[in-house]
Amino acid sequence: VATDTRVSTEPDQAVDQANELSMIVFSEDLDKVLAAFIIANGAAVMDKPVTMFFTFWGLNVLRKNEPVPVKKGLVEKMFGRMMPRGPEKLKLSKMNMGGMGTRMMKRVMAQKNVYSLPQLMQSARDAGVRLVACTMSMDVMGITKEELIDGVEFGGVASFLDAADRSRTTLFI
Amino acid sequence: VATDTRVSTEPDQAVDQANELSMIVFSEDLDKVLAAFIIANGAAVMDKPVTMFFTFWGLNVLRKNEPVPVKKGLVEKMFGRMMPRGPEKLKLSKMNMGGMGTRMMKRVMAQKNVYSLPQLMQSARDAGVRLVACTMSMDVMGITKEELIDGVEFGGVASFLDAADRSRTTLFI
Amino acid sequence: VATDTRVSTEPDQAVDQANELSMIVFSEDLDKVLAAFIIANGAAVMDKPVTMFFTFWGLNVLRKNEPVPVKKGLVEKMFGRMMPRGPEKLKLSKMNMGGMGTRMMKRVMAQKNVYSLPQLMQSARDAGVRLVACTMSMDVMGITKEELIDGVEFGGVASFLDAADRSRTTLFI
Repeated sequence: VATDTRVSTEPDQAVDQANELSMIVFSEDLDKVLAAFIIANGAAVMDKPVTMFFTFWGLNVLRKNEPVPVKKGLVEKMFGRMMPRGPEKLKLSKMNMGGMGTRMMKRVMAQKNVYSLPQLMQSARDAGVRLVACTMSMDVMGITKEELIDGVEFGGVASFLDAADRSRTTLFI
Repeated sequence: VATDTRVSTEPDQAVDQANELSMIVFSEDLDKVLAAFIIANGAAVMDKPVTMFFTFWGLNVLRKNEPVPVKKGLVEKMFGRMMPRGPEKLKLSKMNMGGMGTRMMKRVMAQKNVYSLPQLMQSARDAGVRLVACTMSMDVMGITKEELIDGVEFGGVASFLDAADRSRTTLFI
Repeated sequence: VATDTRVSTEPDQAVDQANELSMIVFSEDLDKVLAAFIIANGAAVMDKPVTMFFTFWGLNVLRKNEPVPVKKGLVEKMFGRMMPRGPEKLKLSKMNMGGMGTRMMKRVMAQKNVYSLPQLMQSARDAGVRLVACTMSMDVMGITKEELIDGVEFGGVASFLDAADRSRTTLFI
């Protein structure tokens, strides 16, 4: 009987272990990043462990607002300047209209009492959502750890795949 | 023996329950929405329950062709006018070329006997695919229930997460 | 007892069978396709079977570098000429800057010893990653089998859904 019990509970555990939610945040578009954090907060409310893996343009979501003095090569400096620094600088993927559309969307969200992106990020972190910065993208784009907000974890593709293996749902955003 | 049977069948049920397919349709690009509905129809043919959750720009896929007289604020009116009204108005994400690429793609699809987007949508609905409109996006974009096609369900992020929990496959499109 | 064992191991198998990774590669953006192949290679290293299903613009990733003499109609010829032919021709989705951004990104990746896209593709294929071209997209875009690189498989939406059913993780890229 002891053996039977062990065997029959194993699959149950397997199902439990694969109950998390993970996301690759590849995009730096405000609308897509908002969607990612709304999902993350919703899942956290349901006590689902959430891992967000920020790669390529998505890395910019984790950058500090203020420029950080770091020694860089010419190309890395250029990339750093051209890419948005943190959540306040992101733009809509459509209807940006030179920034006017993005400003209007932010104002409407505030009027309707929807959290702003910085608020959604804070709330996700308070709820234990893990934010992981892709180290390979950081290397390629010349972004250093000091330039990213505190409390971020660092990992490569294996770290993403581990999270995906524990997840029922994995999204590429 | 009775106990053993109960325990050992539970995981089986858990696996079965997580066999659905769900999609977040975030995009309003004709090509991406076509892909979403081709997948939905394919899954429905295989008797897989399908939930499509339309959010942000994706909401526009569910809008009625004709303008619906609704009282709105200035910004909501502007958003409503700038965004495409229903499947016939969507454009390719690439090679749109002022509408010519989109028209050519539609003509080629018809010549090759591929269903158009309105036909794919009808066929998906006939097969029982659930179309859910994101209520938070509706609120932010100022889109009302009357402006969306009949038979659509309404839900928030929790409703999407429930569908994702029942799904083997969840896509962000 | 024999019956019990059979019943209780079935769910285990179901879990094992659903341990693969699959991706729909819809995009032809260099950055997104790089991400797809970095994930594919990472999963292959972890002995995870990987299926990549190339559809719509993603088909262009599988095109041969050289033009292949094939009889085509006018529209198909035009599509064929306007779309990128193979991995060397893909562009970044952002900061392309008339090709300069893409060239800079490639140079930086080489300097940092990150595999190029053609190298990542070769390495994925050597590791047994399955590349499937969507036959419906080929038909619509007028791309023939001879125009695609050797070793590619061909399949429709059912073939994708089969792979997704065997997968713990399925991404739409």
